[in-house]
Amino acid sequence: MRLTQPGDLAMLLLDQTKRMILRLESGELLQTHKGMINHDDMIDIPWGSRIQSHLGNTFTIVHPSLRDLILEIRRKSQIMFPKDIGYVLLRLSISPGARVIEAGCGSGALTTALAWMVGDEGKVVSYDRREDMIEIARANLALVGLDNRVEFHLADISEGIEAQDMEAFFLDLPFPHKYLDIVKGSLANGGTLGCILPTTNQVSELLLALEPHGFGLIEVCEILLRFYKPVSARLRPTDRMISHTGYLVFARSVV
Amino acid sequence: MRLTQPGDLAMLLLDQTKRMILRLESGELLQTHKGMINHDDMIDIPWGSRIQSHLGNTFTIVHPSLRDLILEIRRKSQIMFPKDIGYVLLRLSISPGARVIEAGCGSGALTTALAWMVGDEGKVVSYDRREDMIEIARANLALVGLDNRVEFHLADISEGIEAQDMEAFFLDLPFPHKYLDIVKGSLANGGTLGCILPTTNQVSELLLALEPHGFGLIEVCEILLRFYKPVSARLRPTDRMISHTGYLVFARSVV
Amino acid sequence: MRLTQPGDLAMLLLDQTKRMILRLESGELLQTHKGMINHDDMIDIPWGSRIQSHLGNTFTIVHPSLRDLILEIRRKSQIMFPKDIGYVLLRLSISPGARVIEAGCGSGALTTALAWMVGDEGKVVSYDRREDMIEIARANLALVGLDNRVEFHLADISEGIEAQDMEAFFLDLPFPHKYLDIVKGSLANGGTLGCILPTTNQVSELLLALEPHGFGLIEVCEILLRFYKPVSARLRPTDRMISHTGYLVFARSVV
Amino acid sequence: MRLTQPGDLAMLLLDQTKRMILRLESGELLQTHKGMINHDDMIDIPWGSRIQSHLGNTFTIVHPSLRDLILEIRRKSQIMFPKDIGYVLLRLSISPGARVIEAGCGSGALTTALAWMVGDEGKVVSYDRREDMIEIARANLALVGLDNRVEFHLADISEGIEAQDMEAFFLDLPFPHKYLDIVKGSLANGGTLGCILPTTNQVSELLLALEPHGFGLIEVCEILLRFYKPVSARLRPTDRMISHTGYLVFARSVV
Repeated sequence: MRLTQPGDLAMLLLDQTKRMILRLESGELLQTHKGMINHDDMIDIPWGSRIQSHLGNTFTIVHPSLRDLILEIRRKSQIMFPKDIGYVLLRLSISPGARVIEAGCGSGALTTALAWMVGDEGKVVSYDRREDMIEIARANLALVGLDNRVEFHLADISEGIEAQDMEAFFLDLPFPHKYLDIVKGSLANGGTLGCILPTTNQVSELLLALEPHGFGLIEVCEILLRFYKPVSARLRPTDRMISHTGYLVFARSVV
Repeated sequence: MRLTQPGDLAMLLLDQTKRMILRLESGELLQTHKGMINHDDMIDIPWGSRIQSHLGNTFTIVHPSLRDLILEIRRKSQIMFPKDIGYVLLRLSISPGARVIEAGCGSGALTTALAWMVGDEGKVVSYDRREDMIEIARANLALVGLDNRVEFHLADISEGIEAQDMEAFFLDLPFPHKYLDIVKGSLANGGTLGCILPTTNQVSELLLALEPHGFGLIEVCEILLRFYKPVSARLRPTDRMISHTGYLVFARSVV
Repeated sequence: MRLTQPGDLAMLLLDQTKRMILRLESGELLQTHKGMINHDDMIDIPWGSRIQSHLGNTFTIVHPSLRDLILEIRRKSQIMFPKDIGYVLLRLSISPGARVIEAGCGSGALTTALAWMVGDEGKVVSYDRREDMIEIARANLALVGLDNRVEFHLADISEGIEAQDMEAFFLDLPFPHKYLDIVKGSLANGGTLGCILPTTNQVSELLLALEPHGFGLIEVCEILLRFYKPVSARLRPTDRMISHTGYLVFARSVV
Repeated sequence: MRLTQPGDLAMLLLDQTKRMILRLESGELLQTHKGMINHDDMIDIPWGSRIQSHLGNTFTIVHPSLRDLILEIRRKSQIMFPKDIGYVLLRLSISPGARVIEAGCGSGALTTALAWMVGDEGKVVSYDRREDMIEIARANLALVGLDNRVEFHLADISEGIEAQDMEAFFLDLPFPHKYLDIVKGSLANGGTLGCILPTTNQVSELLLALEPHGFGLIEVCEILLRFYKPVSARLRPTDRMISHTGYLVFARSVV
């Protein structure tokens, strides 16, 4: 049996939708809407155990998955969702050792996934022109222990980027068409650009600019995630779902 | 400029949907429906270049993304699609160094993604009871140069699994409820099970069995990917889309 | 200009989602969360006018569409939604003069649409075994002035149905497979059965029973309605949508 | 038992997707890819019967539903689909006796549904500036026996419309924003405008023009229809679906 240790990152679940992510520390007290739990009662027990709060509510303790880390990130902005991030990882060919750049970092949801996947040999360069965003993203990455893999820059990428020969560039900015020269200069030839955009107008605007700036092999898509109530005898989708997060646009830097 | 080299894995695209993945070898000839190209004309040129076949059709040469590798895999069976695989990676917390097991491997689509993401320090254990599947999966992994990260087993997992203490287990089998004891024994406590199932009946059957076999925190979902025609002035979804690949089910091994 | 008249059925909209349906009556006072309006201020004015409440909020007055009547029905149960009802009308070939039967009526959403479409020459026969449902459905139909087209029966259809030779039968009951003999006896040969069912298990159960009971040409589908924010420069889907109302099943009575 | 009669409109189905609609006439011969059938073998038999072609394939004979009539219309253009038409009927409050206008008629899919629902007391006014479209639409309506309910005009609506005080106006034209003055003049105050548009750019363009032309209460949506394989023990969506037909836009003529 694997046991929880002081210093471990843990997640408590009351059910599938109420999650809390915390770092276990002897002597600490966790306060929740469903009652209090001493950290000491969550330490040195098997992962996957059930724990009761002082109000009698039962939580399960597990390692947070990358999906959970992304969803439970502290946020000052709309985050990218796991359904989109998962596909972006495959489209940008993120792998251990990869070198990737993003702007802006926002609250750090995609940054977390990129840092997770590039490993200690890889490198994530992350730009944002808002100091509060850099701070929250850095704090979120630090909680997970991934901040050492990210090089944060408090700057507007329109002022120029040092990083050269990057394999992938992700833009989560309202007007990505304004930065295509910068992106082109920073990407290796053949490299991949990814963008997320909430409105159709932004997608149209970006599409107009891609080919003139030396991008080709363009793809536009959206991803819908639909949950089901996990009840064997009454299987059915949940009543409501997220209808839209953003349109994803991908292109290659062509010669 | 990065240049193509003999031995490189390359992808030729005529447009976004016609892809060819090949390894560049001096002296070889590529035959396509759109004309022939000498490998030598594709070697020592910048990645992202455009090349003409002898019939005058223009291809772009780039590194295949992980998405492309999965879609273009040689197949003897229905493969898992990138939209599902991307989400599975996040749900199973695949990371550099991770240890993960799957059954069966099928043509190796998920296997490729897992091997890609776990890196040289990680380990993928892959079971299938059909020799032809193991062979095609192994060949697909070898083409990408990832076969050394996968330990293939030609066996039915109901006969027992050596691997212990695995962090994640993915079942792509028609009757996953039959193997939950085996999965439970092989997963570390708190570890994650993932399944893909085409029919609602299979999902109901699995849901019935999960809790009695020591699994909790159950999630059922499906993912839809919708492409748009990438035309700035006439932005709209494509006419047709894939309506269904499978339902995804996730659960944790609880104590 | 068409003017509003005492006795008219009217709808007030604050925006696209806040609707109130009322019958205009001289001397009455409308109370809303956004302020009060005298009915007399809403009478003898052009349809499509804007009216202010005493708190200064602006409403537009129009005839409620059939869609609005369905959505704003008083309800004691989950209602059928316009997206589903519209398709059902086409599948059941409802037309002026048609004869159609439904069980149960629930709050009367589908009943309203059927009564609307069959006209004065048509006939809707509606069963429910709950008196409170019959009452609320009848009241909802009466508000719209369509109650004279519906013949309500407070009864369980398993006890038998007088109506013969009906062209269409709609079942909105949890176990439709239990009533297929009754439905078969009441439908004209070649007639159409429609059902709505929330869970996949119910659909499977119904499918198993249809052919043995003399039904063929079976179709199962679901309909998704996705709204967009109607903003020209920032066109995008709304954040959330209804993920599921029910699966629709249709079949023909074959010989 | 209801029996088929000479002169009846009938539909033959081989399975759910292969439909043929024909008018039964003594002495005629039906030729299909699956063999020949004499009309006389299809006359004076019960609706819902099964019939064999000379090649031994089995067809079922039923009245075509309105859904079937729409899908099987002869076409020279993209037609509107039942999923969209059903919702449009509710949004435009089409009812027996209603007066509605459309432009253009295209192949007559929506025209058929409108004519079907307004009954003998209602009126459909239909404009198209292409003579071939008017002809095919008229022929399609005539086959169903509904042509007497439609007043066709071979004209561009920008040249003016006689019809006044219409309750509903449906535009299926590429640039609906160009005709809003005409529509406004023809609609009763408070009346409803509906449009279908394939691209997001067209929706944005229309949204920009609606309010300045005296339209309010604007709604934009899209409808997705997903079929399932009707197999009890292996219930699942079909592999492919129609991803897009068009965006629906609705508005009211306000004062």
